[in-house]
Amino acid sequence: MSVRAGREFLAIPGPTTVPDEVLRAMHRPAVDIYAGPLLALTDSLLRDIARVFNTKGRAYIYISNGHGAWEAALTNVLSRGDKILVLESGRFALGWGDNARRMGVEVEVLKGDMRRAVRPAEVEARLKADKGGTIKAVLVAQIDTASGVVNDIAAIGQAVRAAGHEALLMVDAVASLGCMPFEMDAWGVDVAMSGSQKGMMTPPGLGFVAANDRARQVHKKAGLRTPYWDWTDREGDIHYQKYAGTPPEHLLFGLRQALDLLFEEGLDNVFLRHRLLAEAVRRAIGAWGEGQAIGFNIIEPAERCDTVTTVLLNGGRDPEALRKYCNQKCGVVLGHGIGELAGKGFRIAHMGHVNAPMVLGTLSVIEMALNALAIPHGKGGAQAAIDWLGAQVPA
Amino acid sequence: MSVRAGREFLAIPGPTTVPDEVLRAMHRPAVDIYAGPLLALTDSLLRDIARVFNTKGRAYIYISNGHGAWEAALTNVLSRGDKILVLESGRFALGWGDNARRMGVEVEVLKGDMRRAVRPAEVEARLKADKGGTIKAVLVAQIDTASGVVNDIAAIGQAVRAAGHEALLMVDAVASLGCMPFEMDAWGVDVAMSGSQKGMMTPPGLGFVAANDRARQVHKKAGLRTPYWDWTDREGDIHYQKYAGTPPEHLLFGLRQALDLLFEEGLDNVFLRHRLLAEAVRRAIGAWGEGQAIGFNIIEPAERCDTVTTVLLNGGRDPEALRKYCNQKCGVVLGHGIGELAGKGFRIAHMGHVNAPMVLGTLSVIEMALNALAIPHGKGGAQAAIDWLGAQVPA
Amino acid sequence: MSVRAGREFLAIPGPTTVPDEVLRAMHRPAVDIYAGPLLALTDSLLRDIARVFNTKGRAYIYISNGHGAWEAALTNVLSRGDKILVLESGRFALGWGDNARRMGVEVEVLKGDMRRAVRPAEVEARLKADKGGTIKAVLVAQIDTASGVVNDIAAIGQAVRAAGHEALLMVDAVASLGCMPFEMDAWGVDVAMSGSQKGMMTPPGLGFVAANDRARQVHKKAGLRTPYWDWTDREGDIHYQKYAGTPPEHLLFGLRQALDLLFEEGLDNVFLRHRLLAEAVRRAIGAWGEGQAIGFNIIEPAERCDTVTTVLLNGGRDPEALRKYCNQKCGVVLGHGIGELAGKGFRIAHMGHVNAPMVLGTLSVIEMALNALAIPHGKGGAQAAIDWLGAQVPA
Amino acid sequence: MSVRAGREFLAIPGPTTVPDEVLRAMHRPAVDIYAGPLLALTDSLLRDIARVFNTKGRAYIYISNGHGAWEAALTNVLSRGDKILVLESGRFALGWGDNARRMGVEVEVLKGDMRRAVRPAEVEARLKADKGGTIKAVLVAQIDTASGVVNDIAAIGQAVRAAGHEALLMVDAVASLGCMPFEMDAWGVDVAMSGSQKGMMTPPGLGFVAANDRARQVHKKAGLRTPYWDWTDREGDIHYQKYAGTPPEHLLFGLRQALDLLFEEGLDNVFLRHRLLAEAVRRAIGAWGEGQAIGFNIIEPAERCDTVTTVLLNGGRDPEALRKYCNQKCGVVLGHGIGELAGKGFRIAHMGHVNAPMVLGTLSVIEMALNALAIPHGKGGAQAAIDWLGAQVPA
Repeated sequence: MSVRAGREFLAIPGPTTVPDEVLRAMHRPAVDIYAGPLLALTDSLLRDIARVFNTKGRAYIYISNGHGAWEAALTNVLSRGDKILVLESGRFALGWGDNARRMGVEVEVLKGDMRRAVRPAEVEARLKADKGGTIKAVLVAQIDTASGVVNDIAAIGQAVRAAGHEALLMVDAVASLGCMPFEMDAWGVDVAMSGSQKGMMTPPGLGFVAANDRARQVHKKAGLRTPYWDWTDREGDIHYQKYAGTPPEHLLFGLRQALDLLFEEGLDNVFLRHRLLAEAVRRAIGAWGEGQAIGFNIIEPAERCDTVTTVLLNGGRDPEALRKYCNQKCGVVLGHGIGELAGKGFRIAHMGHVNAPMVLGTLSVIEMALNALAIPHGKGGAQAAIDWLGAQVPA
Repeated sequence: MSVRAGREFLAIPGPTTVPDEVLRAMHRPAVDIYAGPLLALTDSLLRDIARVFNTKGRAYIYISNGHGAWEAALTNVLSRGDKILVLESGRFALGWGDNARRMGVEVEVLKGDMRRAVRPAEVEARLKADKGGTIKAVLVAQIDTASGVVNDIAAIGQAVRAAGHEALLMVDAVASLGCMPFEMDAWGVDVAMSGSQKGMMTPPGLGFVAANDRARQVHKKAGLRTPYWDWTDREGDIHYQKYAGTPPEHLLFGLRQALDLLFEEGLDNVFLRHRLLAEAVRRAIGAWGEGQAIGFNIIEPAERCDTVTTVLLNGGRDPEALRKYCNQKCGVVLGHGIGELAGKGFRIAHMGHVNAPMVLGTLSVIEMALNALAIPHGKGGAQAAIDWLGAQVPA
Repeated sequence: MSVRAGREFLAIPGPTTVPDEVLRAMHRPAVDIYAGPLLALTDSLLRDIARVFNTKGRAYIYISNGHGAWEAALTNVLSRGDKILVLESGRFALGWGDNARRMGVEVEVLKGDMRRAVRPAEVEARLKADKGGTIKAVLVAQIDTASGVVNDIAAIGQAVRAAGHEALLMVDAVASLGCMPFEMDAWGVDVAMSGSQKGMMTPPGLGFVAANDRARQVHKKAGLRTPYWDWTDREGDIHYQKYAGTPPEHLLFGLRQALDLLFEEGLDNVFLRHRLLAEAVRRAIGAWGEGQAIGFNIIEPAERCDTVTTVLLNGGRDPEALRKYCNQKCGVVLGHGIGELAGKGFRIAHMGHVNAPMVLGTLSVIEMALNALAIPHGKGGAQAAIDWLGAQVPA
Repeated sequence: MSVRAGREFLAIPGPTTVPDEVLRAMHRPAVDIYAGPLLALTDSLLRDIARVFNTKGRAYIYISNGHGAWEAALTNVLSRGDKILVLESGRFALGWGDNARRMGVEVEVLKGDMRRAVRPAEVEARLKADKGGTIKAVLVAQIDTASGVVNDIAAIGQAVRAAGHEALLMVDAVASLGCMPFEMDAWGVDVAMSGSQKGMMTPPGLGFVAANDRARQVHKKAGLRTPYWDWTDREGDIHYQKYAGTPPEHLLFGLRQALDLLFEEGLDNVFLRHRLLAEAVRRAIGAWGEGQAIGFNIIEPAERCDTVTTVLLNGGRDPEALRKYCNQKCGVVLGHGIGELAGKGFRIAHMGHVNAPMVLGTLSVIEMALNALAIPHGKGGAQAAIDWLGAQVPA
């Protein structure tokens, strides 16, 4: 017996639900890669990706996933032997740093853990201690998809400036772009990167990088540059070079539609929607969790992000049973715990193309699972979410 | 401000949510109307439509909506001047009868009302009183989409037989087929009809009629027959005649996929899923409604159907404000009240391609609206639905 | 061995190639049948269907195929016992007449044959002879899909007027609408009908009827009217009535896109494109046919239509072998001969979404087949088509 | 005036026509990146890509275009300072070599030109002269998309072996894979690469690399390795690592369908179809070109490839006028000349999802253009193609 045979809701933190309009935009014949329409499409996309990053700098679109965009960002500004500082607050900045290390970069990790955000003061202190300016770049994730933390990039940018340090500030915005504000120029971010498959609501296969003037100056001397990722090739007038070869047409058609949806709703509204839905999720977990077997991974409420909530089960309870119930009985696919949280928790994504019935339906199903699996919890989590959200959204 | 920008849920009683697989099946080039694949497709569809109706009789597929299928059913067995008995329990059997009247049929209505089911005993009594057998057919809707009532077709069939009457029993299964059992042969139904756009999960444009041997005998003398609807043309070997002309290819591709989905899930499971989700809706309304401004249209719990729930607001409250909130703020489209319920209530459809998160998400959003619009209601309706449903669906 | 594994070209006279844009427009969620967007869509479609028919009268959209639209046209203006005159020039006007006869209408056929057009003078003579005005309507097909003839509707309209007769002129434009001019008001046509699946480039499932004021006056007393087809119901303000029930949403989305494509190209250009491509086909057949085994069904060049060319093989040669070669070896699906031409010929459709490479590719493949099957023919048919068409389309 | 408003035929050498089935397979919701179906999909794709390359070695799928796959191939087996030999026969092997040079590899070009194939004997001689074995790899394109040449990879492999040289043989099969035989193991190819958007009939966005055991041994010491391209990461059991991060789900769904189409037709049939259609194109050009303004770029008939034909106009005639006519008047998009052929010629692609009517339709349209633009040419090119092809494809 199941009550799952309707639209499946993919509540994993990427790929997210692709809007019907985006899938439809991709369902079309290929077009000439040298002719006007595709050139105009590229121009509009590059402009609008920069707009989403909030930068007057340049944007680059890669045929890659987020890990490819990581590599693009690193290779364009670093050289073998350079030293970078990675701000730990989950898994993904560490992973980015690992990739740098494998390419010959010296990596220092500013220690953090899976349950809290980066402390800007620690960043400032570390950079101040780097008298010789040996640190060439600081890497941080705005949101860590594994832990569900949000880092305060504005404050980190301020810390870098307060330290009077020349290091480039490089930000992973994969799990945040298009879901919450990203003020690249205002915050002092030099290089930012993201991907298509989360808040950008497009199937996986596109990576985005944005770079300001300072980063593009540094780029000129970067030793790790390779043709596929190189900014200089992409900045010229030759359209074919903007993708280092054949453009990924169908994904571009989809991205155009996704951007149109975001702008039509208005980015401020998009961000507000994410904040409201995320808080609804948190209200539910708060209600379930009071003195119970279930709770937040991120300890400080202010450090919980608006796109994915990582939930822990304690007492050795198996989160996979809960995920299985939600999926097989009800048609909701939750994210599993990854890294050190594997087997200890699960993740609820609320990013991208999500609305009230999707999120509240998901919380309802999780509460069914808590009941059906006899996982001790406070009653009324979904109800708390409904009540809170209804109070925020007036008629 | 809104939290609607995700997948819209169309919770109106038809057209219902079309599964992605069905839309995809329709997205293909046209094919030759005379060649093997399309012929085999038609054969499989006619067989499977009969299977869904549970009849050894014949099925017919029309290019039409439900009103066309009404006309097909009537014209194939009736003649000008015939008399029929229409069993009132909402709007749709009356509408079917009106159409018969306009074609020269004498129509008698067995009086009922918008808030209750047909009483089989009254049917039996009326037919017994028809000593001369002047009534040629009895028309009834299994579920009335406007009122949300379900009629007990098995009992009505039994009543017709108990009266020893020869009238054909003709059933409108538009809002029920594919969502709850329909036992055409076992129940003594002679003619049944339905459409593609509700439980059959296919876009509107196809009408279905099933007829048993007795009906097909009567058909031979029917005076209202016209070429477009005529069963005899469709029963031969000429494929082109099975649709009275060009087949509606794309809708047929979709219907094939929809039937495959139903059979893959298993019709018994499909029916159980509808029953569970419907009862979850009723639990919510029950909780909201205790001594409040909101309640069921159908008075007897046992007469509330499993595909659509008609909800009344009292005290002159405007249901359109609630529908507007759900739609514009949250992305859930509810059905409005129609006929005498216009302006007095709204309808929640839970038919076809629906699952737990869709239904619970919808109830959650309605509760947000009740709060936001300050419509007096008992708290915890959505929660009651969650708790009940979770208890029914074990891990 | 085959060279067919690319895009199949469906060169049958309906359904025709559905443009990618139209299929894409249909691939979307269902929408509320009572809300603004669908109402506006219907209004735009009714207006634009009337525009394509070139009438100030009313247009009606049916969920049906062409045979349904036949029935709609007949039942709205005729009564049992009325007499009509059918102008034979193929199969389809006869079929329309047969349907009328089955509904109780007296049908007189103005004899013609499969190989020539209606003679307007004969129409005038027959109507003049009908002193009592017993003939209520004259039925004719603008293009007969079986024979490939085009009738001169302007001249036939003139003939009716010249006879001073009151009969309604009713025209089947199924195989012509959207491909060649149709000047309903200017030509004196009272009722015209068509379908979605030929020149209108939309999947089968929609029928169109247009009626002028005179027809709508006659309609008021028509005895064959039934609710599903009735114009009066559809002319009011209630949207739901415009389709006699649930609207065929997905087909309407498709039709909207198809009309947009037609208007974007410009109807005059569309007609010119059909004329040029049809003449290219005729040039090829002319070259193949000089004193050979292959030739035109329609004897008079001026009577060959611009949407489908019916080709005869003589000497008992089997056209099915040729059709099979084109289909299985090359991926081109030709129409077979129907009616008395079954087994004697085949049909090349060049209607709707067709362009030079599709038509010239089709002719090329037919010439391959003529060679491979050793069917005696003049060489250079495809070449003649190329040369002629190139001369018509300057750089 | 134009006769273009039908299905556009994109006759450029990539991206090619995407089959409807492939586009449809991509039009679906995203799925969980960690669950069974996607894992099984990846396994099947890696196995089948290796099958198309005809190797017992390993295949790798990259989110990239062909240039990305170039980089993947190079970085996995080379180190800074290594020397390679590039076999010139057009533009693409040179481009591949340029990319290697930019990453610190020493590149020697075995001189060739745009109008002929690589001479295996010259390869053997050069390698024999490399006594010290300083050349680590030999790079060559099987087909050069710009020039339209096909190189004899079997013979080149034989030449390497005959020279007794240890260099890796690395082959660019972008414009050939899935269109003509590629016998990686039998021919002694160590590393091969390709992309999704040509013979593989999938939208651009996937790169393929195959490597044999020898290459994977060399890989272990390669200094250019980076995480995004690294084979070792991809060879483990972790699914997520097989794409260095999030898998490109929708493109994978499409690729699966494309491979199914290829295997269903049978690769031998696919290759034969390409050979026949290519020869038909060559027959047309041969007929047009006798002593005229139009001719082949590749001088030796045996060196003209089966997927794209590069055509030169002489006497300063502008090929863009011809391309424009075909596109704007007829709906056929030809490739332009690139590199040193820019402004001197055009390219006709006949690769991937192409059949007889598409290719013959294209030739017909080109002949229309030659006429309309008064470009001197021999008459009857399209006819020659038809006659030749018909003779090859018996009934």
